[in-house]
Amino acid sequence: MMDTPLLLTGFLNRAERYFPEKLIISRTSATKTHRIPYKDYVKRTRRLADALTKLGMTRGTKVASFAWNHHRHLEAYFAVPCSGAILHMVNIRLAPEHIIYVINHAEDEILLIDGDLFPLVEKALPYLKSIKHIIVMHDGFEVPESSFANVYSYEQLLAEASEDFVFPDDLDENTPAGMCYTSATTGMPKGVVYTHRSLVLHSLTLGLKDTLGLSEADVIMPVVPMFHVNAWGMPFAAVNFGMTQVMPGPMFTPSLLLDLIEQEKVTITAGVPTIWLGVLAEQESNPRELSSLRSVVCGGSASPKGLIRAFEEKLGIPFIVGYGMTETSPIVSLSNFTTWMEDWDYEDKLELRATQGLTVPLIETDVVNENGSVPWDGQTMGELRIRGPWIAKEYYKDERTAEAFQDGWLYTGDIAVLTKEGYIKITDRTKDLIKSGGEWISSVDLENGLMTHPAVFEAAVIAMPHPKWQERPLACVVLKAGATATKDELIASLEADFAKWWLPDDVVFLNEIPKTSVGKFLKAKLREELKDYQVSTPN
Amino acid sequence: MMDTPLLLTGFLNRAERYFPEKLIISRTSATKTHRIPYKDYVKRTRRLADALTKLGMTRGTKVASFAWNHHRHLEAYFAVPCSGAILHMVNIRLAPEHIIYVINHAEDEILLIDGDLFPLVEKALPYLKSIKHIIVMHDGFEVPESSFANVYSYEQLLAEASEDFVFPDDLDENTPAGMCYTSATTGMPKGVVYTHRSLVLHSLTLGLKDTLGLSEADVIMPVVPMFHVNAWGMPFAAVNFGMTQVMPGPMFTPSLLLDLIEQEKVTITAGVPTIWLGVLAEQESNPRELSSLRSVVCGGSASPKGLIRAFEEKLGIPFIVGYGMTETSPIVSLSNFTTWMEDWDYEDKLELRATQGLTVPLIETDVVNENGSVPWDGQTMGELRIRGPWIAKEYYKDERTAEAFQDGWLYTGDIAVLTKEGYIKITDRTKDLIKSGGEWISSVDLENGLMTHPAVFEAAVIAMPHPKWQERPLACVVLKAGATATKDELIASLEADFAKWWLPDDVVFLNEIPKTSVGKFLKAKLREELKDYQVSTPN
Repeated sequence: MMDTPLLLTGFLNRAERYFPEKLIISRTSATKTHRIPYKDYVKRTRRLADALTKLGMTRGTKVASFAWNHHRHLEAYFAVPCSGAILHMVNIRLAPEHIIYVINHAEDEILLIDGDLFPLVEKALPYLKSIKHIIVMHDGFEVPESSFANVYSYEQLLAEASEDFVFPDDLDENTPAGMCYTSATTGMPKGVVYTHRSLVLHSLTLGLKDTLGLSEADVIMPVVPMFHVNAWGMPFAAVNFGMTQVMPGPMFTPSLLLDLIEQEKVTITAGVPTIWLGVLAEQESNPRELSSLRSVVCGGSASPKGLIRAFEEKLGIPFIVGYGMTETSPIVSLSNFTTWMEDWDYEDKLELRATQGLTVPLIETDVVNENGSVPWDGQTMGELRIRGPWIAKEYYKDERTAEAFQDGWLYTGDIAVLTKEGYIKITDRTKDLIKSGGEWISSVDLENGLMTHPAVFEAAVIAMPHPKWQERPLACVVLKAGATATKDELIASLEADFAKWWLPDDVVFLNEIPKTSVGKFLKAKLREELKDYQVSTPN
Repeated sequence: MMDTPLLLTGFLNRAERYFPEKLIISRTSATKTHRIPYKDYVKRTRRLADALTKLGMTRGTKVASFAWNHHRHLEAYFAVPCSGAILHMVNIRLAPEHIIYVINHAEDEILLIDGDLFPLVEKALPYLKSIKHIIVMHDGFEVPESSFANVYSYEQLLAEASEDFVFPDDLDENTPAGMCYTSATTGMPKGVVYTHRSLVLHSLTLGLKDTLGLSEADVIMPVVPMFHVNAWGMPFAAVNFGMTQVMPGPMFTPSLLLDLIEQEKVTITAGVPTIWLGVLAEQESNPRELSSLRSVVCGGSASPKGLIRAFEEKLGIPFIVGYGMTETSPIVSLSNFTTWMEDWDYEDKLELRATQGLTVPLIETDVVNENGSVPWDGQTMGELRIRGPWIAKEYYKDERTAEAFQDGWLYTGDIAVLTKEGYIKITDRTKDLIKSGGEWISSVDLENGLMTHPAVFEAAVIAMPHPKWQERPLACVVLKAGATATKDELIASLEADFAKWWLPDDVVFLNEIPKTSVGKFLKAKLREELKDYQVSTPN
């Protein structure tokens, strides 16, 4: 067989050849969208590659992007890797010291940045050691005033570049194509490098009917930012399949997202639970026509059952939970149903829908504890480990590699059980498990239980030291605006579903749960803030 | 990223882990089927690997199969390659001298053969130089009497083997996994070797929603034999996706096929046009309940529009034409519709449905003549060339490689045009084109035109030497039983759709068109038989 390498360049060629008129639609303001067909998008992508090459980009050069979801970011998604260079998608929500760290650690030489985000980076500029050129992505040719010498207008560079730029055809498929950093519980973020091969295989898998079934007929709107694990790989798949892409730009209020779905007839969209909680509330108070929407994909953290039920039962839109992480490109598993579940009651289906789902083809997962692989009993907890062609084998130049990567597996630090159908159900982070009297209590299960209470907006459960039981659960609850509930009411609401020894000893009412830059509960911070809290233990 | 190899072994593990109860159903007689769940199938596959290993199979050993579509053949499909050996699927319809040639040329050491096919090979046994062991696949432990010493019962070997056999986990993804020979216009068949990587990528592509969308929810019945390009790759994909498989065994009369579709609720099936012509006639005279069937896939030779129309309009079943060849694993293109065709008239859609379709992801096609790539005008003919990760790069130990493989492309010998949507439309084989007065006439277009006439069962058009025009078309027609039509009527029926100079000069009525072992018109033989025919030229 021919040794044709798996390269992103093939995706770009395919879009240009077969789908020249299909559109990439980017929101540029609350009332405007920018629309560009693939035939012009690909030409601009070649112009960008030419412009970057003229600025010194060559094979292996790291180019940072610091941008929202829009067509220019998508141009960089292909222009950089198809030239043999590496696109480092910087998480714009990182703390300033982390932004400085990741750009310096990756040794990025060129920075592509949105005009409205430039102020965020301005103060960091003196600390960015490797950046030689900054290119500002916005309409028009003007650039912001800055102490940094080499600041260019993206549009001007493109205007001066050649659309006849030819991408190299001799790249090896294992050439690095992109990188993202993932926040660490302690210390600086850790870098993950994606290759052409890993991105091509991941993208192909997203088109399988048994995963997300992405296809030419779809209008896809990734709400998940392009700086989060390549927007879950969707922009790459979308170009390969010739899909209409809808990119929300910097504006993703529930109202504007619903407008986009309605106006552009979005068929599939993806984001974190927080987004869908907001969208659901907005849709309930101000309904839009959503009949085009065939699926909502949700990941990043656990999806409350109430959220899934509302989408599926009230709105009639399948709500698919996925699991993955920066280290896994990210799709590892999806909570799709199989044929033998067709006749199940909705309540049983909902149980599986709320899990992290069934492992996708080409990926191997395993849940292990000290006795080896756990049985498929829905109860025995172990650590989830993963391997496959789009799973990282290391952190980029980072000695923390040794902790997570062992024996050819990625050890995720997530504690899971396997249902009797083999669906993965994450019960906790290794670091967030509560060990009470030698037994594990899942903080995530308790949180999901609390969040089904009508008065609860969000809830986090953490371990508090305990003289007798070593650790006991403490519930931290944010009530919905205007709602009331007592500690005893909330604990009582859990009694039907949980063993008595799992019930939190106390409830703290907070205004807000501290969160990471990607919207996950920052339990380490919560534990720190509450370390002196005196639990009023019931027994 | 991890350098996880793409291996068929992963498919087998996936079926066993996630789809243990899904079934493989094989027809064993006109009234019986054999049913085995994947959990037992995988155990038997490991037993087979163990048994073959005990007989001396090691990495690189060639194992021949000579069998219909059934679960034992499917066991060999994985047991052999997952052990690092190579399964050579011999076309049982080859002429005896070709069977001897391909087995000797491949240097097959073990032969897996169906009990009822044993007599076909018996006489050839003295000429098979490399075969050391013959294993007879049928129920029971008895083996046929034979002059050959080492003849075993498949079931007995399995009974004695271990189901704990462990497949190697250190195979390179470019390890050869299977091989098929393709008939040549002249000379002996030519061998094509498939690798684990090529089969995995091909299988994955069959699951894309934009190709065939094979999925766990499907009940697949490949009517195309497993000795024709791996049954178009479907058995591999089916195991990976955990699909219910229905295998027609040695019995594929239209009536028995329709029974299987009805009884097993088949959702997708695939075969050559001849099969579907027969199935259509049977369904019209003796209708079955076919509501489970979501698609019929058709390839191997051109599909007449009347056939497609009958399936789509009368039966309401989408009829998807595919293109490929032994050298291409085989799927290169499929006549699926894109979204912008949704509003088209059915007649316009039918035009595209009858083409060879749109090139699938990861594959590149191009149609070239002396001026380079042809325009997308539906008219300019050129030779179709193909490249990609499941396209052969050579014929196995065959100097004819140099003819077909040049500059990194496979030159197919098929003459095609590209429609304005980029769909491939094969107009002829390079060797079957008719060159009249310096211009090309497509014999396939004329054949399709003739076959729309209600009295015509099948038609082949060949070139006859001509003193003035070099070549002129001669139509060879088989009328339907009981139907009548004159030469002039038939030629007149073409006048509306073809230029006057394309019209055949004469029509010969035959009882049968000679065909190759795979059901394609054997035009070389037709030309030979008719070389002395006196054309009654009209002008």
